[in-house]
Amino acid sequence: MVLLGSTGSIGVNTLIVAKRYDIAIEALVAGNNIDLLNEQIAAHRPKLVAIANEADREGVNHPNVLCGAEGILEVIERSESRTIVNALVGYAGLAPTLKATELGKKVALANKESLVVAGEFIDMSLITPIDSEHFGLWYLMNERPFSKLYITASGGAFRDWELEKMKDATFSDALKHPNWSMGNKITIDSATMTNKLFELLEAKWLFGTSNIDAVIEKRSIIHALVEFVDGSTTAHFAGVDMKLPITFALREKVEEAILPPTDLLSMGSVEFLPIEAERYPIWNIKEHILQHPHLGVVVNAANEVAIEAFQKEQCSFFGMSEIVLDAYRKFEDVKAKNIDDIIEIDHEVREYVTVLS
Amino acid sequence: MVLLGSTGSIGVNTLIVAKRYDIAIEALVAGNNIDLLNEQIAAHRPKLVAIANEADREGVNHPNVLCGAEGILEVIERSESRTIVNALVGYAGLAPTLKATELGKKVALANKESLVVAGEFIDMSLITPIDSEHFGLWYLMNERPFSKLYITASGGAFRDWELEKMKDATFSDALKHPNWSMGNKITIDSATMTNKLFELLEAKWLFGTSNIDAVIEKRSIIHALVEFVDGSTTAHFAGVDMKLPITFALREKVEEAILPPTDLLSMGSVEFLPIEAERYPIWNIKEHILQHPHLGVVVNAANEVAIEAFQKEQCSFFGMSEIVLDAYRKFEDVKAKNIDDIIEIDHEVREYVTVLS
Repeated sequence: MVLLGSTGSIGVNTLIVAKRYDIAIEALVAGNNIDLLNEQIAAHRPKLVAIANEADREGVNHPNVLCGAEGILEVIERSESRTIVNALVGYAGLAPTLKATELGKKVALANKESLVVAGEFIDMSLITPIDSEHFGLWYLMNERPFSKLYITASGGAFRDWELEKMKDATFSDALKHPNWSMGNKITIDSATMTNKLFELLEAKWLFGTSNIDAVIEKRSIIHALVEFVDGSTTAHFAGVDMKLPITFALREKVEEAILPPTDLLSMGSVEFLPIEAERYPIWNIKEHILQHPHLGVVVNAANEVAIEAFQKEQCSFFGMSEIVLDAYRKFEDVKAKNIDDIIEIDHEVREYVTVLS
Repeated sequence: MVLLGSTGSIGVNTLIVAKRYDIAIEALVAGNNIDLLNEQIAAHRPKLVAIANEADREGVNHPNVLCGAEGILEVIERSESRTIVNALVGYAGLAPTLKATELGKKVALANKESLVVAGEFIDMSLITPIDSEHFGLWYLMNERPFSKLYITASGGAFRDWELEKMKDATFSDALKHPNWSMGNKITIDSATMTNKLFELLEAKWLFGTSNIDAVIEKRSIIHALVEFVDGSTTAHFAGVDMKLPITFALREKVEEAILPPTDLLSMGSVEFLPIEAERYPIWNIKEHILQHPHLGVVVNAANEVAIEAFQKEQCSFFGMSEIVLDAYRKFEDVKAKNIDDIIEIDHEVREYVTVLS
């Protein structure tokens, strides 16, 4: 297979799974962590390698190194693998998803922005999400008609902070996720609940319904619930470990232990709490965007610029939501007809937000 | 269909379901509640009726009334229905289950004692349990291999009592079930946890595994959990209402609302607690009986006599468990080869326990 984003937490876990099942790694694509990439090259001996920056090429222990966004697309084109694992971060993951699906390759997708931005234009039959929540939903699905889907949120770094104090929260405060160890971008998105909004949009494209909601479950023991028409609700419990969804994304059948089971008697109590727009202002647009999921491209572009501004201390924590909500109002009427429109809207939103901030 | 035990809580709910789906009631079988039976006769116009006691025959508004245990078997034999709902209480439910299955009829089984006593000799392909816990397990099952099944217990009337106080608990104290409104026998069995032991044995016969356990979930929101080999655990949430399992037992497919869904945000917190043998002495034999499920006949016979003794104030609340555990030790080596042996063992145990108490 081809692994995009090999040095992030999904990438590292994917290589553990690949090793367990003896899955050949045809290509590795990484960003700036060249030391780890070199270790991975030594362990998995890929035919092709791509990295983000030309400047790092010399340091990579491989004869065949491509660079930049174009390099990633070339890797996909030249690869013979049927499966691409896309664990790139943000908008940069979209073009590789499109390239892979155009070529009829299966995409095990951890890059949720691909679906958020352009779900409408992606062949969903080729997509398997690498995500605890969507994996949980898929696991719970059966032939019975469902009435509503739920995914859970941990609540992020500030779920228990006083609202007043959140106003002064810093980038490094926001990186302290209570349950999961993940990359920076997704951890910030968890603190603002943007990550969960994106997952609702993902679920919309994956499962073809807007009857989806998210609730806070602070322990991250239950990841997803399905409410069936008959009145039954089923829930998916699993450990906080991405190897479970990764293995299912890579294997047709999984009949062996991937994680130890949840210990019911030691797990303590679990409850579901509402996501409040006061703490998570992005939640104000949840209902609207589920009815207008094509606006995901706007939220994503504004959000990526806002996170950068927050990191550079150009805006406050709540300032990020203000930027996103402002852009959402501004671009409420856009509607892409194709991928070229998506690229243009993304561009326009970024330009607007940059000027604004 | 034929409904055995029409005036109990399962019977009444079954008739509500039958009315909703316009299912014809060929025969009604009831105990002593002749007033309610007459109402049911007027509403459902069965061809046949059977009651427990000859003495009540005059009061029944029906030309065709059979009486006693023999009467029930005759009703089943004369019926043309493919489905028998067996909601009789205790050992008395066994003979009708056997008769129905011998005739190749499907049995929607609320009489858990049938399986506890003689599961080994019953054709499981004809049995659908009417029981929240086994329904929940069945609902959660899929093609994936599971490693363990869990059912939940509310803990019964004394779960929060001081142990010291339980020693003096009366029959009417034990009838105060915190969550479910059920008949006397099952409510007492809940207080002693015998009901849950019986459900483990039922699950053993229904799902062919001894990897089953029960945990306390005081709210009765989650009824069953399945732990899969891969490390996922799934749970079944539903309202405390038997119409859900009854409907699924009577219909091939259920694609409409039977109960309102569980409201996740108002349900509060849920936790799983161990069942402690100090409070529930019957739990001392759980592991042994799951390995030797043919001993269910011993526990059931002793338990029925013990409940009667408790009701007559001939023994204390904990005295019931003493009676059952003593009989279990005494008859540990019995092993029925057929139904005649079962009947004999049942008889011997009752005789032994009666002499003892």
